[in-house]
Amino acid sequence: MKKAFLLASIISVGAVANNPLIKQATDAGLKPLPKSEAEILKLVDNTKNPITKAKVELGKKLYFDPRLSKSGLISCNTCHNLALGGVDGVEAAIGHKWTANPHHLNSPTVYNSVFNQRQFWDGRSPDLEDQAQGPIQAAPEMAAPKELIVGRINSIPQYVSEFKEAYGKDVKIDFKKIADTIATFERTLVTPSRYDAFLSGDEKSLTKEEQEGLKLFIDKGCASCHNGVALGGGMQPFDTNKKYKYKNVGDFKGDKNGMVRVPTLRNIEETAPYFHNGKIWSLKEAVQEMGTTQLSIKISEKDANKIVTFLKSLTGKKPNIQYPTLPPSTEKTAKPDIK
Amino acid sequence: MKKAFLLASIISVGAVANNPLIKQATDAGLKPLPKSEAEILKLVDNTKNPITKAKVELGKKLYFDPRLSKSGLISCNTCHNLALGGVDGVEAAIGHKWTANPHHLNSPTVYNSVFNQRQFWDGRSPDLEDQAQGPIQAAPEMAAPKELIVGRINSIPQYVSEFKEAYGKDVKIDFKKIADTIATFERTLVTPSRYDAFLSGDEKSLTKEEQEGLKLFIDKGCASCHNGVALGGGMQPFDTNKKYKYKNVGDFKGDKNGMVRVPTLRNIEETAPYFHNGKIWSLKEAVQEMGTTQLSIKISEKDANKIVTFLKSLTGKKPNIQYPTLPPSTEKTAKPDIK
Repeated sequence: MKKAFLLASIISVGAVANNPLIKQATDAGLKPLPKSEAEILKLVDNTKNPITKAKVELGKKLYFDPRLSKSGLISCNTCHNLALGGVDGVEAAIGHKWTANPHHLNSPTVYNSVFNQRQFWDGRSPDLEDQAQGPIQAAPEMAAPKELIVGRINSIPQYVSEFKEAYGKDVKIDFKKIADTIATFERTLVTPSRYDAFLSGDEKSLTKEEQEGLKLFIDKGCASCHNGVALGGGMQPFDTNKKYKYKNVGDFKGDKNGMVRVPTLRNIEETAPYFHNGKIWSLKEAVQEMGTTQLSIKISEKDANKIVTFLKSLTGKKPNIQYPTLPPSTEKTAKPDIK
Repeated sequence: MKKAFLLASIISVGAVANNPLIKQATDAGLKPLPKSEAEILKLVDNTKNPITKAKVELGKKLYFDPRLSKSGLISCNTCHNLALGGVDGVEAAIGHKWTANPHHLNSPTVYNSVFNQRQFWDGRSPDLEDQAQGPIQAAPEMAAPKELIVGRINSIPQYVSEFKEAYGKDVKIDFKKIADTIATFERTLVTPSRYDAFLSGDEKSLTKEEQEGLKLFIDKGCASCHNGVALGGGMQPFDTNKKYKYKNVGDFKGDKNGMVRVPTLRNIEETAPYFHNGKIWSLKEAVQEMGTTQLSIKISEKDANKIVTFLKSLTGKKPNIQYPTLPPSTEKTAKPDIK
């Protein structure tokens, strides 16, 4: 028994697995997350805005702080809820004054968003540091002018002292610094799953049915866009005008070349409704719709079900997040404005 | 050094303290929280809806779950934010479709709310189990018919299995059971502070200035309403018509006898704005306003500042709350309705 266990460990650590599906997946561009937390941290880190414990802790507070919105009621976590797969679960994001996203755009998940090659549905932002500046200011989202947020944070002594701890005593807490700090936290929101263990050689970690689904996922061509660590995250042409079933909902057309950011499939079970306009609630229907719209094939009910079985194996382990106690406002802190 | 430490420990554990302020406070009806977590749990428990670990964990999930609202966007935590002293930090609660509370009522803190003798500003509810049923259904709050919520929870297999774990396999998940479970979690939201250590005999745990403030707090008469474990929580006459500075904001008049629930003063530093209609943002102004309105005395700037210094010592240690991962909806789960 002990010997068998030892052998299994050795295989899972590094030996070449016998399962040809692993090679097929790797050849198709699918990549597992590294095995250890330290390796994952290394992968998501960046020289421009290096991850430190103090920055991540502070970034978490800012992420959960609704005072980063004009009203004082909407935080990053409102639309990218870490309890709900990193999304809000509604078709189009709802922001300040209950305004729906004017393009009927669905909130993408923040989990594993560090692996997106570009941020936002139209890929207009290169990284999370840049992305985090957007929703805070956008009128239909958090609706806060930069100066309001910079003023609020600087009016709260405990925040000031935590910025000093994170960046040194001469830190200037400007809008960029606030967004950078949030991004540092977001970089850590990575969710390894059984799928990663499988791709790393632990063949037993996906069931036979899940493996069948993965094979179909590759064979049908899904992995031609949904590849890499995120199973997505790149830019691809997406014809929002012609083939897509709900083309009449919202006016989103992608970037100037009609390219749309491919959503990650990690935790996809938790992030309905699907597509840029959140019009499809069923994962099976989403798979079939992608067959029609992107691959010009009909994916049968049976095959779609198998692919869905595989997709559910992408639901990953969420990081442990201690809900923060936010530093209290002072009399100098700009009041919430719900108007 | 070691001997001195030992002596201090003995004094703090049980010996009669020399400080006459402790006796004065006790005589004025002020009561500390018990010292140990186990004793606190015993104090907040009740035979009707006993606390268990499984219920508290499940209750926490429900507390954070926005799918308990019609829109799928508002959770208990939206207005009673555990990161912000258990409140939302705005004057009047904002709910479904960005509706302000029609009576311009301010969200009371959920921390230590178990010690309120009655719930809601007009005390219309006897306990948290009953209270938790209100906001979920109220049209300007979470706006959800009972049946919608009961249906949603029952459509999510992981919730069903957690209810079974908490209540046994024959549990019927009805609206009362859902509210009871939330209340169980809320009962545990107790925040001991240095003030409790002081009242329990550890004289060093409040500074000289804080003790001066506490003495003034009692001498001026504040403790005649703000007493007991919560420094508040009972019902008192409050003349919303005549003396109160912002009497013209909102139409709240208390219960049928003009009685209003006295807010707890624990964590008061974190729960601005103050009063039933959230019109006063400065704690010092709130103290002075209470002098005028309730005690018919003028509290000087200097005395008010001292009382505020004491009040800040009531900011307590928050329970460790692991932010939950909520069970995913299924295709049977009723969709969010933002209309």
